[in-house]
Amino acid sequence: MSKQDTSAASTILQPVVWADGTLELLDQRLLPGQIVYLKLTTPQDVWEAIRELKVRGAPAIGISAAFGVVLGVQGFKGTARELAEEARRHAEHLATSRPTAVNLFWALDRMKARAFALAEEGLSAESAAAALLEEAKRIQAEDVETNRRIGEHALTLFADGMGVLTHCNAGGLATSKYGTALAPFYLALEQGIALKVFADETRPVLQGARLTAFELQQAGVDVTLITDNMAAHVMSKGWVQAVIVGTDRVAANGDVANKIGTYGVAVLAKAHGIPFYVACPLSTIDLSTAIGAEIPIEERHADEVTSAFGRRTAPEGVKVYNPAFDVTPHELVTAIITEQGIVRAPYEANLKALFDK
Amino acid sequence: MSKQDTSAASTILQPVVWADGTLELLDQRLLPGQIVYLKLTTPQDVWEAIRELKVRGAPAIGISAAFGVVLGVQGFKGTARELAEEARRHAEHLATSRPTAVNLFWALDRMKARAFALAEEGLSAESAAAALLEEAKRIQAEDVETNRRIGEHALTLFADGMGVLTHCNAGGLATSKYGTALAPFYLALEQGIALKVFADETRPVLQGARLTAFELQQAGVDVTLITDNMAAHVMSKGWVQAVIVGTDRVAANGDVANKIGTYGVAVLAKAHGIPFYVACPLSTIDLSTAIGAEIPIEERHADEVTSAFGRRTAPEGVKVYNPAFDVTPHELVTAIITEQGIVRAPYEANLKALFDK
Repeated sequence: MSKQDTSAASTILQPVVWADGTLELLDQRLLPGQIVYLKLTTPQDVWEAIRELKVRGAPAIGISAAFGVVLGVQGFKGTARELAEEARRHAEHLATSRPTAVNLFWALDRMKARAFALAEEGLSAESAAAALLEEAKRIQAEDVETNRRIGEHALTLFADGMGVLTHCNAGGLATSKYGTALAPFYLALEQGIALKVFADETRPVLQGARLTAFELQQAGVDVTLITDNMAAHVMSKGWVQAVIVGTDRVAANGDVANKIGTYGVAVLAKAHGIPFYVACPLSTIDLSTAIGAEIPIEERHADEVTSAFGRRTAPEGVKVYNPAFDVTPHELVTAIITEQGIVRAPYEANLKALFDK
Repeated sequence: MSKQDTSAASTILQPVVWADGTLELLDQRLLPGQIVYLKLTTPQDVWEAIRELKVRGAPAIGISAAFGVVLGVQGFKGTARELAEEARRHAEHLATSRPTAVNLFWALDRMKARAFALAEEGLSAESAAAALLEEAKRIQAEDVETNRRIGEHALTLFADGMGVLTHCNAGGLATSKYGTALAPFYLALEQGIALKVFADETRPVLQGARLTAFELQQAGVDVTLITDNMAAHVMSKGWVQAVIVGTDRVAANGDVANKIGTYGVAVLAKAHGIPFYVACPLSTIDLSTAIGAEIPIEERHADEVTSAFGRRTAPEGVKVYNPAFDVTPHELVTAIITEQGIVRAPYEANLKALFDK
C-alpha cells in the first residue's frame, strides 16, 4: 500500500476509484485537512482500509470489498473454478473486516455468486477475472443510479425553506456519488430548492464535521455544523422540520442500525414531532435479520473517545464504552426511502413486498 | 498573571485557592494533562480567567469573582465609602465575564452589599478590605457545607448498584469541594454504596471527559466515559436508573439552564422512564427570572467546535452554531436537590416556599 496526493482528486471527490489494476481509496481519516488517495493492490490492503475507517459508509465499503475480491484474483493461474474458490476465500476474509454494515456481505455474496456462475460458463481464468472486474464496476455504477433515485424520492418529502438535520455521513463520500441521506440535498441544489442543513459532528470519529460538513460546503449546500448534544436545542428552536440519516443495516421489521447517536436523534425527533427518515438502497435491507436486536454492534477502541484529535482529552486508564452503532426501533422511523420508493409502517409487510416486486 | 506548576495542588485538587494576597486558580482548560495554577493579582485577570473557562462551574465562578473584588480593593487608599464604590465598579465589570450563571451575580451582589454595609459601620478602608476578604472566604467555606448537604439529600434518591448518568462537570472542580451533582457520588464512596457512573464527555469543551471522568477516577468512583451521543443507547440498555446534573441558573418556574446537551439528556431520560435530577445551591435559583426563556444563552466561538483539540477537525469557513447552554423545561425535571432539601413540582410554589423559610 502506498500513498499518493490528489491523484484521483477532482472537484467532486470520489471515495473509491479503480485505476489500472489498482484500487485508489480516498483516506477519509485525513479529511478535511488532507486529500490523500491510497493505492491498494491486495485484498489484505482493502481489509485494513475498511477496518481502520480509511473507507467507510455502507455502500462505499461494499464497493471497496468487491474490488478487493478483484485484486485477489488478478493474474490468477488455474481454472475458472479454482479462481472462484480463490474469490470465495478472499470474500470470506473481507467479510470479517467490519460486522455491522450489511452492504459488505451483500457485495461479497454477489461477487462470489458471479465467480461461480462464470466458472459454470466454462470461461478461462483470465476472462473470469475480467468479468469479475466488470461486476465490481457494475456494483459501483448501479450505486450512482440507486442514490440518484433515493434522492429523488427523498426530495418529495422536503420543501423549500425547510431545516433538515443529519447525523454521521451518508453522503457522496460514503457511496459512489450523491450519497443516500445527502442525495436529496444535492438534488435540491440542482433544482434551486433551498434547504438549511444541520450536520451533527458525530463523535467519536467526527464524520459529520469532517465529511458531511465538508462535502456539503464544497458543493454549496447551506450547512451548519453542531455538536451532537446541540441537536435537541436546535429542534426546540423550531429550526428542524425533518431528520434524514443513512443506515448500515435495516432488519426485516424496520429496525435500523446506524452510527452511534442515531437512536438518540430519533427519540429527540419524536419528542419534537419531527419526522425521522432513513435513506438506503435495497442492498442495505436484510430480510434475513428479523429484528434489530440480532444486528451485531461493533465496539471500537477506547482511543477513539479519549484521544481522537491528536491530543489526549481524557485521563489515562479511564473506563470507556465505545459502541460504533446503535439500533433505532422501527416505531421511531417515519419512513425508509429506497431506490424503489418510500416505505412506511407496517415495515415487515411493506419491506417484504418491496423485494417480492 | 503568571503560571506556576502544582503550587496549590494536593491529592484533592482545589479549583480556587486564596494564598497571600493572590488568587490561585487551577487552569481547567489544561486538565487532565497538566496541573497548572494561575496566580491572579487583578480583577481583570479574574475576568479573563472566567471568560476563557480557566475556571468554570457556577459556584467556582461565583467564588472566583468574589475574590476578584477583593483583589480590586487590596491596599486601597481612601475612605471605606470610596472603597465600596471601587468594589462596585469591579463587581460590575466582573459581572460581564459570562452571562448565564447566576451564582456570578449572586456572589458579586453579596460582595457589593457587604462593602456598602462596612462603609456604614465607619471602618477604615484597610479594615473594610480585610472584612471583604473574610466575606469571600465565607462564600467559599459555605459552599463546602452547602455541597455536602446537597450530596446527602441526593444520596437518598440513589441505591446500591444503581447506574447514574451525568453531563458536564458539576463536581469538586466546579465548586469549592464535593460539587453539586457529583457530591452524592463522593458521599456514596465514603459510605460504601456502589454506584456506576456514566460521564457524558460534553462537547465542545469536554468537561465530562477532562474533568468529571478525571476527578471521579482520582477519587476511586466507578466511572465510564461515553460520548454525548451514546447516552440514549446506554439508557436503552437499562444501565441508567437516574440522571443528575448541575445548573447555571434555575428560573422561578423550575426551568433549568445548564451546559449544552442537558436538555437532550432530559428528553432521553423521560423517554426511557428515568428520573432526571438537578442539584444546586439556593444561590443558583433566581426567582427574579420568571421562566427559562428569559435566561440569556451565551454563544461561544466556532473554534471550540471546529478545532478544540489542537487540530482542526472541520472544514475552514464552515458555519457553526455554538450555544454554551440550553434550557430544560421544568416538566422534564423530576426534582431539584438543594442544601435545604429536595424540591418537586409544582416548582413555582415550592421554590418560593424554600426562600420564604
